[in-house]
Formats: sequence, C-alpha cells, structure tokens
Amino acid sequence: MSLKKYNKKSNQSYALGIAPTLDLLREKPAIVKKVIINLNAKDTKAIDEIKSLCQKNKIRVEYASRAIEKIAVKENTYAVGIFEKYQSFVDTVSNHIVLINPSDPGNLGTIIRTMLGFNFNNLVIIRPAVDMFDPKVVRSAMGALFNINFEYFTSFEEYAKKYKRSFYPFMLQGAQELKSVNFKEPFSLIFGKESTGLPDSFLKTGQSVYIDQSKKIDSFNLSIAVGIALHTIFSQKNV
Amino acid sequence: MSLKKYNKKSNQSYALGIAPTLDLLREKPAIVKKVIINLNAKDTKAIDEIKSLCQKNKIRVEYASRAIEKIAVKENTYAVGIFEKYQSFVDTVSNHIVLINPSDPGNLGTIIRTMLGFNFNNLVIIRPAVDMFDPKVVRSAMGALFNINFEYFTSFEEYAKKYKRSFYPFMLQGAQELKSVNFKEPFSLIFGKESTGLPDSFLKTGQSVYIDQSKKIDSFNLSIAVGIALHTIFSQKNV
Repeated sequence: MSLKKYNKKSNQSYALGIAPTLDLLREKPAIVKKVIINLNAKDTKAIDEIKSLCQKNKIRVEYASRAIEKIAVKENTYAVGIFEKYQSFVDTVSNHIVLINPSDPGNLGTIIRTMLGFNFNNLVIIRPAVDMFDPKVVRSAMGALFNINFEYFTSFEEYAKKYKRSFYPFMLQGAQELKSVNFKEPFSLIFGKESTGLPDSFLKTGQSVYIDQSKKIDSFNLSIAVGIALHTIFSQKNV
Repeated sequence: MSLKKYNKKSNQSYALGIAPTLDLLREKPAIVKKVIINLNAKDTKAIDEIKSLCQKNKIRVEYASRAIEKIAVKENTYAVGIFEKYQSFVDTVSNHIVLINPSDPGNLGTIIRTMLGFNFNNLVIIRPAVDMFDPKVVRSAMGALFNINFEYFTSFEEYAKKYKRSFYPFMLQGAQELKSVNFKEPFSLIFGKESTGLPDSFLKTGQSVYIDQSKKIDSFNLSIAVGIALHTIFSQKNV
C-alpha cells in the first residue's frame, strides 16, 4: 500500500474516520475506490455496517494500521474511505450560495451541511479558496458534501457572465436589512471571505443586504452569517 | 522566562497571536500580566498598537522568539498576551444561554462572539466541558470572551436550583417551532452537546423548541443552531 497524505492536486481524497467513511458509503458508494479498516477498531457495530456497505457495493476492504496513521490528521482514525474526486456544476434554475475566497475548511463543511438543512443545493466558490475535497471539509460537512452541486470560478465576473440572476451580496454596510428583502428567484447570495468580507465594489452588485446586530462585535463568523441568511429565507418560504 | 504550554489547571492563560493580543489589551487590560512580542514580527502597525496599549496600561513587554514557539499552537505567532484567569457569575435578571457539555473550543468561541452580536451577555456551561480560557476559545471569540458573564455548574439541576426562570431546551424532537414560541423573560435557552444534543428527559424541562429544517441532514452544527435561535429572538425584539 502506498497511501500518501492528502494532496489537492491528486484525483483522490479521503473520508477520515468511522463516521465520515459511513457518510461516504451511504451517500456516494459509486465513487469509493477502497476502504481501509484499522485492526484495532473497537466500535464493532459501525465497522460491521462499513463492511456490509462495502460488500453490497462491491468495494474492496483492506485491514491495516500503519497506512492509516500515515494519512490521518487526528489520532485514532479507525477507518478511511478512499474516493475519486468528481466534477460538478451548479443548476441554472436554482438559487446559489456564492462564497468568495473561503479559506477555512471547517467553516466550509459547516456551511455545506447548513445549506442542505435549508434546501439550498448549489454552491459556487470563487478561487483562491479552500479545496472542497480537503478531508477536513469532508469531515465537517458530515455527508452533505456528496449531496450538493458545486462549481469553481476564478473570478466573480466569470461566474456572473455564465449565470444570469438576482445578486444579493451580504455586507456590513449593505443597503437593506435581511428580513425586509424580497428575494427574487433564481437568486445568488454572495458572501466574502472570513477575514475581510466583501469589498465595497459589491455595493453595486444587485441588492446589498446586512444582518442586524449589536455594535459590540465587528461581524459574525462566516458560517453563522450564512446560517442566519438561509434560515431567514427558508422560514419565509415555509410560512 | 519559563513559559509552559497552556494547562487548564493553571491560573493564567494566553492570547496567542497579534489579533487576540490586541483584543485582550483593548477589552480587559487590567488582567494582563505581560506581553511577549516576537522579534521577527512584520506587522509593525499592529505591533506599535500593542506597545502603546501596554505603555498606557503599564503592562510589561518582553521580546523573544523561543518562548513564543514553545507555547504557540500555530506557527508564526508574533505576539502573546499572558493574562490572569478570573471568576465570573451570570446575571439573575438577564436571559441566559446554557450549554450542556460543549466540547469544541472553536464552536464555543464562535458562540460567544455570536451572543455578543445579539446582545446576549450571560453564558452558563455545564461540566464536563471545554475550558472557557483555552487559547483556542480566546482566539475564536475574538475579544467577545472578555465582555460576557459566564458561570460553570456540575449539573443542570444545580444550575436550575440557583436560577429560577423559563427554560427553553432546543431539541430535534422539540414541541414548538422556534418562530412561534413566545419567550418569557428572563429565560434560558438550553443546548446539548455537539455529538448527541439534549437527552429526551429535557422534553419535560420547560417549553421544548425545534428549528424547522429539511430532512436531508440529521441536525445543524451547535454554533449554527445557537446563531439561528439568537437571531430569531433578537429580530422579534427589534421589530
């Protein structure tokens, strides 16, 4: 076995750990190349489920301990699912979430999970950005990653040229408060990077939006801002 | 200098990095024992601000590089604020956020920052739980940590005995949807731990609440659930 630490240029990635491996096998068995199980794994019920999903989907299982240590980020990684990366495109008629230069893998995974929780299934990422298939994103998305469409662009302009729709950039200095916005479908909700948010130039991109808050903090964490926006829109639709 | 890696039994903790050190000096200069600046620090503007805040508050500044490497979690830590931990109590008349056994420091920091953004200033933590003064919490709270009241208890029962008020446990199987709840002040919003949420016994603790979501995910990340709850209540108050 010649497993290497994850490299974003490689065409394969890893689900690291028992829960991420189960998510992968349940959601997207067709892309799984191999599963490795650590011989010391104690959670026999979950390991049995991994084995039975592999058998059902004709996926090879290997037993090891050293190979896992080599690619694992956390200690005590008892299972690894090795999968083929795939290309994906967002849907023309659906609403999009657009993240400009997101850099934190945990945040990205949490955002993907939150999107699916509010029926948003299309994610656009503007580079430079964290890699969707980074094992930390896979882990924190908890299976949701395999259920959304996503597409990368090198600039917002390139994206805006391909997809015509209503743009709603979220900015501290936005013109309209979230709850009073009448979102016209199909729309794109646009969020800037963790450290700086969106540049002022986005004030002219469609209808800018802000989330009402106290003056005691500068801004919310990116995943919190996205969660609040999606919950508000989801709630208005389900009244 | 004999600086050691953070230990939760110690009576001091660290703000690790330029931004966390600035937050500490701005928000709570009285508890700062010493600031260490790395001789290779390049962000001269921020370093100058650190120095001037130390001078103003008569805080000792030392220059080093090895001492910082020893206690730093991330590479390139150019400043460290060493501070005295302090005890704190929540406010009897205010609303509380109660976290049962939170275990993720990044989540806890994000929750604290979100609380302050929605004018919630009182946090109760039921042990076992992550340590409030863990440098990872300090970092992700971005200064907000120093502006809230917090209090630890060893059980929810112990907390409920001390503070009489309306309880709202957040649970997937909660009885009432978040938006339709009429929160009676002073109240406590109660959230379970990341991995399992609250046990069923909380269905009998006050008015249980759920957040409407699609069936495509099991649950939201803890910080997302707290963010959505606080935003909803903050919005209703500010109509």
